[in-house]
Amino acid sequence: MVAPLKAGLAGLGTVGSAVARLIAQQRDLIEARCGRGIEIVAVTARTADKKRDLGQAKPRWVSDPATLAADEEIDVFVELIGGEGDPAKLAVKTALAAGKSVVTANKALLARHGVELAALAEKHGVALNFEAAIGGAIPIVKTLREGVSGNSFARVYGILNGTCNYILTRMEQERLSFAECLKDAQRLGYAEADPTFDVEGFDTAQKLALIASLAFGIRVNPDAVYVEGISSITPEDLDAADALGYRVKLLGVAVRTAQGIEQRVHPTMVPKETAIAQVMGVTNAASLDAEGIAPITLVGPGAGGAATASSVVADLCDIARGALAPAFGRPLSRLTECRQAPMQRHEGGYYIRLAALDRPGTFATIAKHLADENISLESIVQRHPGGRPHGGDDPNSPATPAPVILITYATTEDAVRRALNAIKREGVIAGQPQVIRIEKY
Amino acid sequence: MVAPLKAGLAGLGTVGSAVARLIAQQRDLIEARCGRGIEIVAVTARTADKKRDLGQAKPRWVSDPATLAADEEIDVFVELIGGEGDPAKLAVKTALAAGKSVVTANKALLARHGVELAALAEKHGVALNFEAAIGGAIPIVKTLREGVSGNSFARVYGILNGTCNYILTRMEQERLSFAECLKDAQRLGYAEADPTFDVEGFDTAQKLALIASLAFGIRVNPDAVYVEGISSITPEDLDAADALGYRVKLLGVAVRTAQGIEQRVHPTMVPKETAIAQVMGVTNAASLDAEGIAPITLVGPGAGGAATASSVVADLCDIARGALAPAFGRPLSRLTECRQAPMQRHEGGYYIRLAALDRPGTFATIAKHLADENISLESIVQRHPGGRPHGGDDPNSPATPAPVILITYATTEDAVRRALNAIKREGVIAGQPQVIRIEKY
Repeated sequence: MVAPLKAGLAGLGTVGSAVARLIAQQRDLIEARCGRGIEIVAVTARTADKKRDLGQAKPRWVSDPATLAADEEIDVFVELIGGEGDPAKLAVKTALAAGKSVVTANKALLARHGVELAALAEKHGVALNFEAAIGGAIPIVKTLREGVSGNSFARVYGILNGTCNYILTRMEQERLSFAECLKDAQRLGYAEADPTFDVEGFDTAQKLALIASLAFGIRVNPDAVYVEGISSITPEDLDAADALGYRVKLLGVAVRTAQGIEQRVHPTMVPKETAIAQVMGVTNAASLDAEGIAPITLVGPGAGGAATASSVVADLCDIARGALAPAFGRPLSRLTECRQAPMQRHEGGYYIRLAALDRPGTFATIAKHLADENISLESIVQRHPGGRPHGGDDPNSPATPAPVILITYATTEDAVRRALNAIKREGVIAGQPQVIRIEKY
Repeated sequence: MVAPLKAGLAGLGTVGSAVARLIAQQRDLIEARCGRGIEIVAVTARTADKKRDLGQAKPRWVSDPATLAADEEIDVFVELIGGEGDPAKLAVKTALAAGKSVVTANKALLARHGVELAALAEKHGVALNFEAAIGGAIPIVKTLREGVSGNSFARVYGILNGTCNYILTRMEQERLSFAECLKDAQRLGYAEADPTFDVEGFDTAQKLALIASLAFGIRVNPDAVYVEGISSITPEDLDAADALGYRVKLLGVAVRTAQGIEQRVHPTMVPKETAIAQVMGVTNAASLDAEGIAPITLVGPGAGGAATASSVVADLCDIARGALAPAFGRPLSRLTECRQAPMQRHEGGYYIRLAALDRPGTFATIAKHLADENISLESIVQRHPGGRPHGGDDPNSPATPAPVILITYATTEDAVRRALNAIKREGVIAGQPQVIRIEKY
């Protein structure tokens, strides 16, 4: 019998204690699958005296993460502290430098310092596994690292933030405003008190940067990701999307273009019949397009103690089995520098919602500026609020804005921005135009 | 630089030549991901003189599979011959006995002889990988073997046969008969000239037996699978399912019950909003339910040269990397004997369609026999063909059968069978009752 893998666990919140319990519960299964057991021999957390259910584990208490990381007894350090800086970073570096493998759920740390940490892991010949950092229980890292090793990807994209998908689902199904749904999400514990990181797309951007690195062999760089959140989406947008055969999802998309790997996070119109459009509520999903392969889509619970613990334990099992793959799927020398593909050169279809002032010549002005930028329209929907016929029956409010919805054929971000600026300058629309990119399938 | 992994490839049909081309095309990627290259050094196929596009590979020709399997130059034998017997079986056994790893897409061979072959692989410390045998490009084997190693599964289920899903999709969307859709599937190359193996569920049963072994740690045994195909499904059933909020899919389901692992393949009503219900056309999917994990669902192309080759090459990459997991996820000594859970004790809801003879007392008779078996009804839909009101306006045909659709609450297979037999004996229905099991979520 091979000696058990000895793990030190830093962070004993929902995920940390779920990890300890799962390992205790599944002792036999893990031994059967890995040829050896896994033991949590030492732990640390912010407060020592809190009551926690760690199953049958009776680990030794260690004062702080960095001390635990250097602990002589442990083979692997499990980092569930969170945050891109210390103490998580110091502890992970300490563990790797001491020749210990690391398992972490910390997307922020990896997105920011992934290259540096992968270099350290490579130098010391140890594993740096982070299945739990993206998509909860969904085996997306393993699939990108090992599952489809022989394929070059054309595009990878996903719904990587359960908070946003929950909000968009509620907005769509119950025609509620963003603010109302956010409040509900906060009440249900799906959104933080300060929701900015989730709803403005930054969480998705960090996860996308990791996925893009694995898929395209680029050095992870969250700053190369164009980011736009969902707070400006209205029920009217979702209604219009529905009528046009789309759903709106906050997607993270990484795609190979002539300009490099384009990485972007933004509300996206996806055709209703695609697998990704079917993903509702807090569920996450990722789709992979490779040559000759219609997308492979992985769908599952994106957060929660059990789901995240499942991925942490799977990563530990790989280490117990002796499997060792480079952190980002290729050795650092084979990862290329990540050039940011300029978003203004993004090509695709656009959904544009304008509040057109209801007076003669408005539409001609809009059409002219679109034509000036060579933007062709696939469809135009003009809806008068309350079903009021064109021209209105109230002669005193000739300039009431009426929503005009335009769907463009493929064009560039640049052209759309220029056309909309010109239209704004003409004073024929009220407020800001709403722009949602359409993803092609 | 580590020496390349040398592979011998038996079978040069659509998949075999796609494998050779993919390896040639992706030379750099494979080296980067695996730390070494993969070379097809020798091949064999039924006919030597056929023109084939193998990319840049210029492999040596070997007379027959078994000779190739024993070839001194090769490290790994790739079996793409097919069939549960020789020459595939002999060749795979020869390779394993000679200490060579094996990669195969042969579900029939593995379903029938998996235990014997896994024993041989284990004895010689080599890999027996078969990602391509189930679900084409979908990394279902890797996910079950390694991706969720710490979880015990409650149920695994999937759409594992593209032919059946294509036929059911067409039937549903265009209200065509099974026979018409089968003919189209044959014309498009989605179904064989003799479609029995696919449409009667045997292909799904073999794949399910493999999945069940990986998920539940049982010795693979296709004879333990209850099998029913889709040839009796009618457009009326699909219409009724639709009206009730369901779709009909041919599912393979393996579920842990008090009686053991129940393995069954049959047309199944699944709620429309589930991920598995959204899978249309030739696409495949598998869902995994584990404690605390809403299903993880993997969706993707289930067949075709590129999809299958992708999985074969991923398996080769694992071997090139030196990864070695037991064929069925656990060593043979940890696999338990597969007891067939008796289908008559299956518990669940049922859809029952009867052609009730339209005369007084028919429904009372049906209701009585259901009540005798303690079967409660969730809904009853009686439709008169052509909207003819009850009683009809044609007094000369009082016994014209009218479809009656019953949805039961959870009951047992046994009770349903007994009740239907009793109803048939009463002479109040025409023809055979249609029975479709409802899968719970």
